[in-house]
Amino acid sequence: MFKPFHNHEGPEKRTPQARFFIDPEYFKVEMNRWFANRWVNVGRAEEIPNPGDFILRTVAGESVLITRGQDGTIRSFFNICTHRGTVLVENVKGTAKSCQFSCPYHAWSFDCQGKLLGAPGMKEVDGFREQDWGLRAIGCETWAGFIFVNLDRTPALLADSLADMPSKFVNWPMAEMQSAACIEYDVKANWKLIIQNYSECLHCPSVHPALARLSPPTSGENDPPNSCYLGGRMSLNDGVTSMTVSGSTERPLIATLDETQLRHVYYYALLPNLLLSLHPDYVMTHRLEPLAHDRTRIFCEWLFETNTISKPDFQTEDAVAFWDMTNKQDWHVSELTQKGLSSRGYRPGPYSNREQLLYDLDQILIPKD
Amino acid sequence: MFKPFHNHEGPEKRTPQARFFIDPEYFKVEMNRWFANRWVNVGRAEEIPNPGDFILRTVAGESVLITRGQDGTIRSFFNICTHRGTVLVENVKGTAKSCQFSCPYHAWSFDCQGKLLGAPGMKEVDGFREQDWGLRAIGCETWAGFIFVNLDRTPALLADSLADMPSKFVNWPMAEMQSAACIEYDVKANWKLIIQNYSECLHCPSVHPALARLSPPTSGENDPPNSCYLGGRMSLNDGVTSMTVSGSTERPLIATLDETQLRHVYYYALLPNLLLSLHPDYVMTHRLEPLAHDRTRIFCEWLFETNTISKPDFQTEDAVAFWDMTNKQDWHVSELTQKGLSSRGYRPGPYSNREQLLYDLDQILIPKD
Amino acid sequence: MFKPFHNHEGPEKRTPQARFFIDPEYFKVEMNRWFANRWVNVGRAEEIPNPGDFILRTVAGESVLITRGQDGTIRSFFNICTHRGTVLVENVKGTAKSCQFSCPYHAWSFDCQGKLLGAPGMKEVDGFREQDWGLRAIGCETWAGFIFVNLDRTPALLADSLADMPSKFVNWPMAEMQSAACIEYDVKANWKLIIQNYSECLHCPSVHPALARLSPPTSGENDPPNSCYLGGRMSLNDGVTSMTVSGSTERPLIATLDETQLRHVYYYALLPNLLLSLHPDYVMTHRLEPLAHDRTRIFCEWLFETNTISKPDFQTEDAVAFWDMTNKQDWHVSELTQKGLSSRGYRPGPYSNREQLLYDLDQILIPKD
Repeated sequence: MFKPFHNHEGPEKRTPQARFFIDPEYFKVEMNRWFANRWVNVGRAEEIPNPGDFILRTVAGESVLITRGQDGTIRSFFNICTHRGTVLVENVKGTAKSCQFSCPYHAWSFDCQGKLLGAPGMKEVDGFREQDWGLRAIGCETWAGFIFVNLDRTPALLADSLADMPSKFVNWPMAEMQSAACIEYDVKANWKLIIQNYSECLHCPSVHPALARLSPPTSGENDPPNSCYLGGRMSLNDGVTSMTVSGSTERPLIATLDETQLRHVYYYALLPNLLLSLHPDYVMTHRLEPLAHDRTRIFCEWLFETNTISKPDFQTEDAVAFWDMTNKQDWHVSELTQKGLSSRGYRPGPYSNREQLLYDLDQILIPKD
Repeated sequence: MFKPFHNHEGPEKRTPQARFFIDPEYFKVEMNRWFANRWVNVGRAEEIPNPGDFILRTVAGESVLITRGQDGTIRSFFNICTHRGTVLVENVKGTAKSCQFSCPYHAWSFDCQGKLLGAPGMKEVDGFREQDWGLRAIGCETWAGFIFVNLDRTPALLADSLADMPSKFVNWPMAEMQSAACIEYDVKANWKLIIQNYSECLHCPSVHPALARLSPPTSGENDPPNSCYLGGRMSLNDGVTSMTVSGSTERPLIATLDETQLRHVYYYALLPNLLLSLHPDYVMTHRLEPLAHDRTRIFCEWLFETNTISKPDFQTEDAVAFWDMTNKQDWHVSELTQKGLSSRGYRPGPYSNREQLLYDLDQILIPKD
Repeated sequence: MFKPFHNHEGPEKRTPQARFFIDPEYFKVEMNRWFANRWVNVGRAEEIPNPGDFILRTVAGESVLITRGQDGTIRSFFNICTHRGTVLVENVKGTAKSCQFSCPYHAWSFDCQGKLLGAPGMKEVDGFREQDWGLRAIGCETWAGFIFVNLDRTPALLADSLADMPSKFVNWPMAEMQSAACIEYDVKANWKLIIQNYSECLHCPSVHPALARLSPPTSGENDPPNSCYLGGRMSLNDGVTSMTVSGSTERPLIATLDETQLRHVYYYALLPNLLLSLHPDYVMTHRLEPLAHDRTRIFCEWLFETNTISKPDFQTEDAVAFWDMTNKQDWHVSELTQKGLSSRGYRPGPYSNREQLLYDLDQILIPKD
């Protein structure tokens, strides 16, 4: 159905065919391939600390209920009743009373592990067995405080999708860190353009003059390509201790980082939807939620150590203001690219050497068949 | 094109496949099958009492002109000029001056029986005959004061679509009753979910606590299934004389009802789009106008006897407030079901015995081929 | 793919099948056939008088950059960067600093003739040659002050699409005239309905009573049909000197017109999108920009001689008010026709002899295959 996206035979590396980004049908294929069959980040375990706590998230257009059971385990379910298909939970965040969810239509009730507890009027139905009608479970695992779900019926292990990330970032105590700020963006661009934009700093001098003053745009050192994640690091200029409006911070640096880690920022895209930016004193994350071929919802969060958060003079503004400005600059050029790719005049263009990760990303994402 | 909607082979009765409710293509098939080829309720004869009076209604997306001729007969036409296809009438309700409709573009004029009266500039066209270019008529009949139209080119008799309804409800003088209140709702749910919701009271305890206090949710007695209509009756609790906020009413009860009829409410769905709720002192109707696979416009009206309406203390509020609240409760759970049915996690679920009419409805509506 | 639009075999001339106007798929075919492969008017040369001046226009959904080079020549380009496809210019009108356009993403820069001037980071890419990556040009020519572009890769000469129009209208000094007023309309009708409406005055008595008082609706004399344009002239009533609210004007009449030209208004539709209405003292133009099968953006402009504009008592209101009223009357009946054509009840209707140009237009526009 989808012909190869590269029609270029020459030695240069070129951008993909436009339909990779602008075709609503291909978007559906990609949602099935990358979001309905892989481990997708849906937030942080700290959002539902106690049994009965729940959040709703949307994965590949699907409403997913994520809740912590009385055994302390986080699980996820399709957010519909098994009786007539009615949406089970309406609030996007809350705590289920007595760890029970009751359907608003006919009052079928389920516990936080998905078990059917009661079904009015069904006792007299021949052959009906409560154990057959629990909530439909979805694969759910956590790493470093991040919750991932997998809509695949027989999901692989999350660990296989993380590769060596856990060991690589062991010095950042992410499992214990907490989000202290979040901004939601609605960007009129394909989700892959967001990852592309994240994966090169060739645009930094023209798009991010403030960032370019803190971290040299040409300082990027990328890891070799990998089917699970793409990324690398950039150095901080002398005298700069953090990516903030001023270039410095009054927050303590993370004590477990080594000298090299304190002088760099690490930018990694964990496919398909988590961008992880590890700084000397905080971790910034972007969680991507593709809404359409030309629209992506993005949640940007800033995580800090809990003992940093508890300090009386704690504030997030210097980091948030800096990256909010930078984010908006990125979304703007990403939206201009989304628009331009629809042009009859578009032809695959040449990648520079500093856009190597984009070419690598294309090789991972473009279907071979 | 459409595979069977039931894939369940076991003895239990299960809900249909999701696409019965969520597929825009199937919605088009269904509009052709059920709304463009059957008798569809479009309102009440009392709305156009005099010659030249007209209303516009939308049937299967089609603008239909319904007007009373100088002979007193109600007729309906496609609301377009036969010259260039221009919309003929713009106002949704009114009275045609001298019983004539004049096209706003080139002033072709037609009488209320659809006959072409004048066509400027056409006299000199060879072979043009005025009698060939009257308005295109649509099947139109009335029963009990209700107007029905049928877009089929060779419509069957309306009587065949009513089955024994006329004799069953002869004690309610509906032809002479008048609408004294109307509320329009825009519901984000498939039209069949509205009929499903109307056809069971298993949801009454959880969704309608106020209703459950007036009429026992388990008191339903249904008629045997029928391809024209589905319905049954529910009893009123002792001391309750009408479905109102208080459970009683100062309006006189309908004098022609027998003892049994005074102690019940009769709920019938006349397919495809008229819900008829007959009470001891009024008749409530819901007219469904499907707008999309996931959207239905609903007009709810309350009919009363004319001598009741003419009483000085006549009011509609006790019945309207009660049912407006109940309607909104129903639309809410219907909308939650529409949403949930789109889930990848949806599987046909088990009907209870008290949802028998829904199963019957499925058998009537689901295409056999 | 598209069957013949005429299914009528008889001697009468009839309107086309509805899908000619209401089918979104046919609209795409038509956009490719008539707007992406022909000379399309995009405005006036006077809008970009100096080198570096530019405007953006949309042609067949495509953003087109039109700019005047340092050599004084007007050229047009796809408005995207050849690097990653990003939209190059965001402002719809302006002047490029130093006649250079710089891409907002990675700062590739181009001159006003489309030549690539700089591409950061590309020098070290093997095989990269700047001369291969200039902006993609689009055919661009002017006539009588009107700019036309042609998205066809090997466009024919503009002159071939004008036929004898240049000689026919040589007495109106259009190249030197200037626009002094412009109104933009968003009309919910197919672009061809706008041209149809422009091409007959049978509707004038019912739709335009004020116009009918200045110019007799039956005075139309049409040219023989022509694949490039359709049109004719209508006479002014005795005592009427211009189409204005009063029927007269204080503006000087155009000195180069002959006696016949001073007593008529000339109405020509230059296919596919320029309506040219030549009056004794001004030229009115309608530029059509089809947005969808059922929606057209229309820019109406009024051109005057520069020495008329420079007079101290110059005003445009008498002509603008008259035609704005007339335009709105036309858009209204065109929108009613668009709506009506979607009716299941529509059948091709009979053209009168005074709608001969519409029949001619159908023969030109309806695909033969």
